[in-house]
Amino acid sequence: MSQWSPVAVPPFTEAQQSLLLERLCQFSLANGLVMYPPGFTVTNAEIAPVTLFPTPFPKDLFERAVLVQQLFNSLFALVVSQKLWLLQVSEGLAAHDKEFTGRLYETYMKAVQLGGGKLTQQLTLGLFRSDYMYDHIQHSIKQIEFNTMSVSFGGLSTKVCQAHDYLNKSGTYKPGEKYYGDNIAVSDSLKKLADGLAHANKTYAEDSGTPATPVVLFIVQDKERNCFDQRLIEYSLVEHHSVMSYRCTLEAAKDITYLADGFLRIKATSEEVGVVYYRSGYGPLDYESDPELTWDNRLYLETSKAIKCPSLLTQLSGTKKVQQALTDPETILSFIPKLSKSELQELTDTFVKIYPLDDSPDGNLAKKLAFELPEKFVLKPQREGGGNNIYKEKIPEFLKSIDESEWGAYILMELIFPPTYNSKILRLGQVLEEHIILELGIFGTILFNEDTSEIFGNENAGHLLRSKVSSSNEGGVAAGFGCLDNVYLQEK
Amino acid sequence: MSQWSPVAVPPFTEAQQSLLLERLCQFSLANGLVMYPPGFTVTNAEIAPVTLFPTPFPKDLFERAVLVQQLFNSLFALVVSQKLWLLQVSEGLAAHDKEFTGRLYETYMKAVQLGGGKLTQQLTLGLFRSDYMYDHIQHSIKQIEFNTMSVSFGGLSTKVCQAHDYLNKSGTYKPGEKYYGDNIAVSDSLKKLADGLAHANKTYAEDSGTPATPVVLFIVQDKERNCFDQRLIEYSLVEHHSVMSYRCTLEAAKDITYLADGFLRIKATSEEVGVVYYRSGYGPLDYESDPELTWDNRLYLETSKAIKCPSLLTQLSGTKKVQQALTDPETILSFIPKLSKSELQELTDTFVKIYPLDDSPDGNLAKKLAFELPEKFVLKPQREGGGNNIYKEKIPEFLKSIDESEWGAYILMELIFPPTYNSKILRLGQVLEEHIILELGIFGTILFNEDTSEIFGNENAGHLLRSKVSSSNEGGVAAGFGCLDNVYLQEK
Repeated sequence: MSQWSPVAVPPFTEAQQSLLLERLCQFSLANGLVMYPPGFTVTNAEIAPVTLFPTPFPKDLFERAVLVQQLFNSLFALVVSQKLWLLQVSEGLAAHDKEFTGRLYETYMKAVQLGGGKLTQQLTLGLFRSDYMYDHIQHSIKQIEFNTMSVSFGGLSTKVCQAHDYLNKSGTYKPGEKYYGDNIAVSDSLKKLADGLAHANKTYAEDSGTPATPVVLFIVQDKERNCFDQRLIEYSLVEHHSVMSYRCTLEAAKDITYLADGFLRIKATSEEVGVVYYRSGYGPLDYESDPELTWDNRLYLETSKAIKCPSLLTQLSGTKKVQQALTDPETILSFIPKLSKSELQELTDTFVKIYPLDDSPDGNLAKKLAFELPEKFVLKPQREGGGNNIYKEKIPEFLKSIDESEWGAYILMELIFPPTYNSKILRLGQVLEEHIILELGIFGTILFNEDTSEIFGNENAGHLLRSKVSSSNEGGVAAGFGCLDNVYLQEK
Repeated sequence: MSQWSPVAVPPFTEAQQSLLLERLCQFSLANGLVMYPPGFTVTNAEIAPVTLFPTPFPKDLFERAVLVQQLFNSLFALVVSQKLWLLQVSEGLAAHDKEFTGRLYETYMKAVQLGGGKLTQQLTLGLFRSDYMYDHIQHSIKQIEFNTMSVSFGGLSTKVCQAHDYLNKSGTYKPGEKYYGDNIAVSDSLKKLADGLAHANKTYAEDSGTPATPVVLFIVQDKERNCFDQRLIEYSLVEHHSVMSYRCTLEAAKDITYLADGFLRIKATSEEVGVVYYRSGYGPLDYESDPELTWDNRLYLETSKAIKCPSLLTQLSGTKKVQQALTDPETILSFIPKLSKSELQELTDTFVKIYPLDDSPDGNLAKKLAFELPEKFVLKPQREGGGNNIYKEKIPEFLKSIDESEWGAYILMELIFPPTYNSKILRLGQVLEEHIILELGIFGTILFNEDTSEIFGNENAGHLLRSKVSSSNEGGVAAGFGCLDNVYLQEK
């Protein structure tokens, strides 16, 4: 257990909580911290599920996560642009997952073929989000996932930060004082993600020599409940960059656009699309309404001259398999040979340790750990779909139950021990007292050339804190099991 | 009929209107263009009633209304600070309207008495709004009312302007084009009203030498449905001026504040109140829950050192009687002797003509007009409560029915002929096609010394366009008979 222990929840009286609730609700409704409810009509939104106050997060670890983001951005850009390794990994995955990874891979190959051996547009834009959990035993952050496509909540995160910041500054947590001092971090993700899109759009315009400002095409899910998160980015594009946007589903892509000499244009206006921004298309469900149409439309968009956010290869770099492989320092160095020792350390420090159960030195250590400290590990089959995970104390008995020659089919993976916090959540008009665990997301934007590896802008882009009720294993704020939160940066 | 004729409504297809509606709704919900519905819970707001597109307004007349606002601001400041005339008029009104004007007058007198012959705080802040209708026969704007207290919709006006501006720029009214060009005026009333409050608050702090930034106290109605209009101003105070606010009803004023040496302070925190901003207290209904308490609290606030927005006298300057008297150029000149001829003209051009029916030259003209052009006039009894208004063609027969010696008890007042427009209104999730008439409001802010007539800042503060369904005589957007709109500034 580390010495860091979180500050207490503000001690509300009932009257104070009622005032807080009024201020929080009215701030949320006045500032677009909203979502559509299930089965919505277009005229009625609800306040997004949100904590009543920010949650303490170790300041040093937050800063470490921010610091390492640009390294991660460029690592993934290089994985994509050096291609061969990624294509091999993806081909392997494609064989096992024909219907999704397989079609992504196949669509990429077709797009290259149609481009006469290379993509029509080599530039690609990544709006990334690296998600972490805080391990309070090790006092470290551990990466859960690196998201390379359709990352959400960049818009609403800024709003929830502003809401908590307003409540803090207005003395709502403690009359006459800022209970959280000046240590509520306000995420600039809304503006920064829009800046990333605008930068790509501008670069497109400069390259193509188009006189009018190109537009951004948001590819969205039908009946998107989280559309305000997307709209906020659209409005920021208008306000700060005078860039207009269109929205359509993957199914409707050819209904509202056409291709002429490779240029993607809006049918109604002939406006040129500079960036195709996918907020849909990242999972199998986004294609299943009409697979022939949706995959065909994906190929159609990919073969256009518009910059894709992200490209197919960038999407493929986001698979678990790639991320697992990248936990190996040798693999990282193969992509960035010039990486300094300390930079490499910054990256690998965020990975949970994964041991083989073979005869290597690491393997021998793992065999010892599995029996001596099983409570810190999960045993996972190497191959996806190769069986169930075995947790903690059940590991020794399981290993004893199989022949030692079969142990090599498993890996031993460190568990993350996130602390639980008491919190209060506003959801659907109710205040719920819950034990929560945190997931911190750090946004980053990068524009790069998939062929030449050139990088044209690599930026930090704010943060997101989501809380999940600790009894729930399911994720996703929109799904109703999590809520929007924000960090109170607390020193040791 | 003037040569100015308004541009046609954008010709929507059904699909275009559906897209427009989606964009308008999502912009409104994401940007706080909302209100609470009747019987609301704090967590659920609705889109404010709003037109789908802006309404044409003659550009020259809009500019004239903007141009004359600072003159009106200072005219009312001088009426208030030169006092004697206003006190006489108010005393007269008080005699007829004991329960409201009477108590305002009495409360003012008590406040002066308690201050030992003058008010504790001589500075007062006016956030004013001058309301006009466009007369398309004369091609002129005519003042309906000059509001000196609790003017509303300065916050939401900015939002509805931004909504129409966004729809215009995004080609929603006409694909690929800005249907309304660059001629949608975006009101800066939200920011400017907050600036006015902040300026008064800063002046207070400088005068009182208080080290910490004072706070603004919003006096609001209980269960205010239009609270977002107010909250937006509060948030602007935080964002642009780091000034915090509190809200309470008139009934609760002494529950959350106390007076010490004349300084008004927040009980929970001892923070000093720099400005008391009345968004309640302007009409009899705001006092009737418990008249003893509410009038006592009003006196309590008035005797504090906080700057009142507005002071009692400034409130009293907003009566119809004062405004009617100020239509007389001689009266205006008595307050601003240095007024140039053209400035005087700018003011009086906005007044509807009012004729006596006596033996003066104007009176003789009026007697002629009443019989020859009755369709342009309304006949009103001089004394308030002196009988019904007689409209248009009914005037001659009415005058014939009474003795000519009684004619002097009436005035002949020009009618305003506003054009009606076809419009579409979004209200409670429905799109309604309506004939509307317009009411343009111009905001202004002025900080002045009620004793010395010194003016410390006199600013224009944006605009508001409200539309009313032309069949309805009742006003007020919140009441459900009007809606928020905005001007498309159209040249002749």
